Parts: sequence; C-alpha cells; structure tokens
Amino acid sequence: MVNVAILGFGVVGSGVAEVLDTNERHIEGKVDDLIRLKYILDVRDFPDSPFAGKVVHDFSVIEQDPEVSIVVETIGGAKVALDFTRRALQAGKSVITSNKELVAEHGCELLRLAQEKGVSYLFEASVGGGIPIIRPLNQCLAANEIEEITGILNGTTNYILTRMIRAGLSFDDALREAQANGYAEQDPTADIEGHDACRKICILASLAFGRHIYPRQVPTEGITGVTLADVAYADSCGKKLKLLGRAIRRTDGKVCAYVAPHLVDRENPLSGVEDVFNAIAVRGNAIGDVMFYGRGAGKLPTASAVVADVIDAAKHRDEKKRMFWAEGGDDTAVPPDGLESRWYLRGTGVQAAEAAFPDSTRLSRPGAPADEFALVTPPMTRAALEARLTGMTPGSMFRVLD
Amino acid sequence: MVNVAILGFGVVGSGVAEVLDTNERHIEGKVDDLIRLKYILDVRDFPDSPFAGKVVHDFSVIEQDPEVSIVVETIGGAKVALDFTRRALQAGKSVITSNKELVAEHGCELLRLAQEKGVSYLFEASVGGGIPIIRPLNQCLAANEIEEITGILNGTTNYILTRMIRAGLSFDDALREAQANGYAEQDPTADIEGHDACRKICILASLAFGRHIYPRQVPTEGITGVTLADVAYADSCGKKLKLLGRAIRRTDGKVCAYVAPHLVDRENPLSGVEDVFNAIAVRGNAIGDVMFYGRGAGKLPTASAVVADVIDAAKHRDEKKRMFWAEGGDDTAVPPDGLESRWYLRGTGVQAAEAAFPDSTRLSRPGAPADEFALVTPPMTRAALEARLTGMTPGSMFRVLD
Repeated sequence: MVNVAILGFGVVGSGVAEVLDTNERHIEGKVDDLIRLKYILDVRDFPDSPFAGKVVHDFSVIEQDPEVSIVVETIGGAKVALDFTRRALQAGKSVITSNKELVAEHGCELLRLAQEKGVSYLFEASVGGGIPIIRPLNQCLAANEIEEITGILNGTTNYILTRMIRAGLSFDDALREAQANGYAEQDPTADIEGHDACRKICILASLAFGRHIYPRQVPTEGITGVTLADVAYADSCGKKLKLLGRAIRRTDGKVCAYVAPHLVDRENPLSGVEDVFNAIAVRGNAIGDVMFYGRGAGKLPTASAVVADVIDAAKHRDEKKRMFWAEGGDDTAVPPDGLESRWYLRGTGVQAAEAAFPDSTRLSRPGAPADEFALVTPPMTRAALEARLTGMTPGSMFRVLD
Repeated sequence: MVNVAILGFGVVGSGVAEVLDTNERHIEGKVDDLIRLKYILDVRDFPDSPFAGKVVHDFSVIEQDPEVSIVVETIGGAKVALDFTRRALQAGKSVITSNKELVAEHGCELLRLAQEKGVSYLFEASVGGGIPIIRPLNQCLAANEIEEITGILNGTTNYILTRMIRAGLSFDDALREAQANGYAEQDPTADIEGHDACRKICILASLAFGRHIYPRQVPTEGITGVTLADVAYADSCGKKLKLLGRAIRRTDGKVCAYVAPHLVDRENPLSGVEDVFNAIAVRGNAIGDVMFYGRGAGKLPTASAVVADVIDAAKHRDEKKRMFWAEGGDDTAVPPDGLESRWYLRGTGVQAAEAAFPDSTRLSRPGAPADEFALVTPPMTRAALEARLTGMTPGSMFRVLD
C-alpha cells in the first residue's frame, strides 16, 4: 500500500483526488501496490465532498505519519508550499508538485534535498499542464545535447492572442472574455505580463542545460503591448503573434533565455497552436526538432500529470538516480542582447522609418493612418536596432522567429 | 562499464554508433557507468570506418560474451532479427530495437521473454523515429485511460501527399521526387500501401490498450488511390488529405484499428504536419488531447531514440517492472465497420449521386468534368454508405476525420 497526502484542495488538488479515484483500477495495473489517498490538507472543510473524511488541517499529522510516502503539493506560491515541501522531503517522503513558481525559484535546493533523502521531487505538471515534457526532456531526449527550447507556455495569453487574431477583439475585450470563460484570473498580471511563461522556461532551461536559471535572470515582456494593428500587419506577411519563452544554448555554454511576443510564420507548427493550448518545441543535436502539444492547463489534464508522477514515485521507491541540476549563478544565463533576429517595427513617421531602415520590408494593412509605418528589418541585435531608432519611438517592436 | 553491441551497420546502426560517440561525455552524466560500443555485427567489413575494429561477423561472439549487457538490433525484418533477438534475451542481455516489423509481429513474445530473463526489450525508435512516444505513452500518460490514438505515422506518404497538395504534383511524380530525395525506397510498397503505418499503429495500440494487436487484424489502405482531383476537392472545403493510422477503444473493450487516407480539417493540428514529419495525437480520459510531433525517420533522429533506450537500459539494470502487454486474439481488434464517419465521395454520374445522397454537401473544383461529382455525406457506417452506392462506382471514398 502506498499512502498519498494532498496539500491544498483547490482546482488541481481536487482533480488529483478525482483522477486517483476514477482510474484506480487502471493505475493498479501500473504499480504492484495499491495507491491510497490518506489525507487532504486544507484550511477549509469540505463536508459535501466524497473525500470529506480525509481532510486534516495540521500538516504535522502528515509529516509525522510514517505510512505516508508520497505528498502531492498543489498549494501554489513559494511560501507555505516551500516550508511544507522541505519538511516532507526531510521526513523522507517523495513530493510531487504542479507549482511552477516553487520549482522555478527553489528547484535546485529541493532536488538536492530529495537526493540526499533518497526520495523523489517530481514536477511534470509544472510545465505544459498535462503535456508530457519534463520526463521526455530528461529521459527520451537523453542522448541529445539540447540546443534550443521554444514554447508557447501560457494558455491564457495564447487564448487572448487567438481571439485578437481570429475575432478581431481588442486586447482588453479578449482579456475580459478570457476571464468570463475562466481562462484568466481576476488579477491576470502573472499571465499577461509573462511571469508565468518565465517560470516555465526557467524550469525547462534548468533541466535541459543542467544549471538553475532563475526568473530574475530572464528578461520578460508580456502581451499588453500587442495591438490589433500589429495583428493585422503580422497577418499581411503570413505570420501570427505568439508569446514565446525561449532558451538557447550559446557556443560559450551560457544560456540565452527570455520571454517576449514574436511574429511566427504560418509554416512553423507553433503558429497553429491556438486557444488555451500549449506547445513546446525542442531542438536536439541528434533528434532535430520535436514538438509536444496539448492543453497547458485545466483541472484534469494537470491532475493527470501529477498522478503520472505519483505512479512513477510509487514504482521507483528504491531508485536513487534522479533528475537534478546544479546551482546557477550570475554567469549561467544571459539576456538576448547578442541574439540576432529580424525585427518587426510599427510606429508613426514614415519618412524617418524609411530613412533609418532602407533595407527593410515594408508592411501594409487596410485602414492604416497615413503616417503609420510597419516594417520587418534584416537580422540584427537589439543594440544595432536601437542605434538606428534615433528620433523615432516605435509603438511596437517584436522579434520575428526564424 | 556497460558494453553494447550493434547488430546491423546500416543507416540506423551507424547512426547509433555516431550518436554514442559524439555525445559520449553528455551521456556519461546520465549514467554512472561509461557506455562502450564493443561490437558491430554485419556481414560486410567497413575498413574505412572509424569503427572498423569493432566489426564481427558471427553473432555467437556477442551472444557468448558476458561483458555485453545491451544489444542494439537494427537489422530490420522479422527473420534473422527475430532469431538474434530471442538469443540475446535468452542470454540475459537487454535488446533495443528500431525494428517496427519485429515488434508489431512478435512484441508480446519478446516482452515476455525479456521479463522472464529480468532484462529490457525497448523500442522507442520503432514508432515516430526520434519522437518520444512509446515512453510517454507508457509512463507520462499512465494516469489516463487512453481512448484514442490517431497518427501520421509514415513520413514517405506524408511527403508525397504534401507535394501533391502544395506543388500540384501527381502521385507518380511526387513518388519519383521522394525517391530522388531519399525519402522513399526503390520498392516503396511498404510505405505507399500503408503497411509501415499499420505496424506502427499496432505497436501503439498494443501498448495503450494492453493486448497485442497484429498487423493482419488491421484493415490497411494506402495512398495510391489519392488523385489531384481529391486534393482539390479537399482544399475546397478547408481540408487536407492525410494517411492516418487510428486505434479507438470501444465501449465493449475491443479496439477498432485501421489505416486509411482521411480528409483532415485545417483547424486540426494534424493537418499542419507536412513533409516527412510525423505526429501522433493521443486522447486520454483525464489529459484530453496531446500531440507529439517531429521527424519520423532519418539516421540521427532514429539513432537518438535508440541511444535514449540504451541509456534507460543501462540505468535500470536491476529493475524488474517493465513495459508489457498481453497476448492478443481474434476478439481483440475489430475493423472499423461500426465506426460512423462523414465520407468524402468522388466519381462520375452527378444525377445518381444526387439521388443517392440528397442529404450531402456537394463540393466543386475548377476544371472538373461535367459528369464528375464530389460530396461529403452525413455521418454513417461503411455498410450504410455502401448500401446507398447501388449502381454507382465512386473513384475515391475516404473518411473525414471529425
């Protein structure tokens, strides 16, 4: 018998309880032991839930119960969740989480602690919801040197951009619609400003490149600056606007990581990723390009990734060799300053733009004001671009993904 | 030290040697032991190869060398490869293969033998080349009941269809181009008649649904019947022609499996899978839809999947719980006779078609002969469709993927 405790009975936590319950017989075939949900920790009671009898309010009940070998942390944030995760690992219990903030900020420490204690710290659900990406990156692509990861990592912003592109909604209207449909929080900051995508690219980059990359090291730009004019110009040259998290291994061994809106060509499979779906493209030196696609969020997809980790931890209790990455440092990650891209620029002042960028491709859209310009430059660094911007203030300035 | 022998020094076998060599330092970080290539078995010698000194011609050298714990079988076919695989497993060596024919025909027997001997039989590279799909299906999606698998499983046919759709080449011209580019064999039968896709859907279905499904149980239709007229009609209704392998769990527990060309809507991410790329869409009861995308063939992608399996076998030498599925039987798989689809029909005799299918959507294309019809029916079984075909002989008859 493998006893499991869930910390936090919110959307994901209750989904985990449901998936464990619904697929119990199926899961039994995957592990020798029965997996039993023993406790649910929450500050609230849930008298109407079928799991009401399992609810406890004191973490030490779980911490001190030697029968509990697996703790599922779905509290979120990096305060209480950090404390409970440390204590659970210290007590010799494996911890499974969907908490990207905690992994992005403290993954290195927690993986080391798990290794010391001979238990697992697993977080498949922290990136891409139900999409299997952490384990394939760690195992299936093990024979590759990973060269680059580029992903649509946030479902909320992808939904908003999709609605702007398809239905012609303004950013504000699309955001309101996303909130009404439950795809965006009432405070949508973490999504629309790119923080959520930033945490996820940090996790992927740390795993792929072997050293912890912290969110504060990753320049992050959200989608609040994307306008319908930009959507129209992108469309005019066969591209779509997508918020991408990227991590690229440089020849000097450092990792260039950032989050920003990009123009993505329609021929690129990432451009076809619509609505709340996520996709992560990985380039390895042997495998070439592979892409993982699916629902990036949602109760049951995320819960199913958590439960897959529970099964894994239950099966491999005696195995010591685990995922890990080394501590990072100031020299691990670099901003994309040296990264050459074609750039999309939109602003006012056609003559100044033509003088500054004679080598660029001009774009047009129906109904554009007479003094509006939009263009795509040849490949150059951000510094080279900004040097040419003297006396101009572009309204939008996004990289083109090539 | 983990000693490896490669059987067959063809495209994949030599790729495995290369990836082991190139990424040696990277691989060392993944396993405690060094992985060393000790033998290459082939009937030929390779005096100019850097691996020349490792070539042997007698399998018993490998079979009887207790130092060799992992055998990579890249011979192909189900004769010599079957004999050597059985003997290697009997001798207590793990076997890694890219040989889809062998797994599709004998996977159940070989997995059982591996389990008896406490070793591994792994075949990530047998489906989707370098795309991680076997392990995610077995592990990451373990918390799900798999409901359906639908895949573009053959790169050659996808290349041919892409060239017909994009460049307007006839089937014959597109095939010749694929052969000239090395994407199709001189004898392309296994690809264009769908046999290759059939083997792959058998492997995926056996793994996902737990009982062996044999190629002979899976009705298979290739793409030789697809014409440019069909491509044009599909385009007229926003769809693309794709060769799909499908396996669907029925409510009675049986698996409906088949391979056939389908009309796929442009909104479906499978429609964006072009050229030699493969993609496998999996639907689970918790996760919803996920898709795995990448190069379905090629020396290095396939080799990198083989080497990932080698690493896995090297890491988990003592672990007994492995992939498996039970023996199949006549009652395991059923043809798609009961599966309702919308159908695309093209043929001659407009009046007869309109009389037989008054409830259908008529399609048109520029330059169609006056007596040609093309239509999409409402959802119905194949039997219901054929009952309406009295006196008509459609030139093409494909399911629409909904």
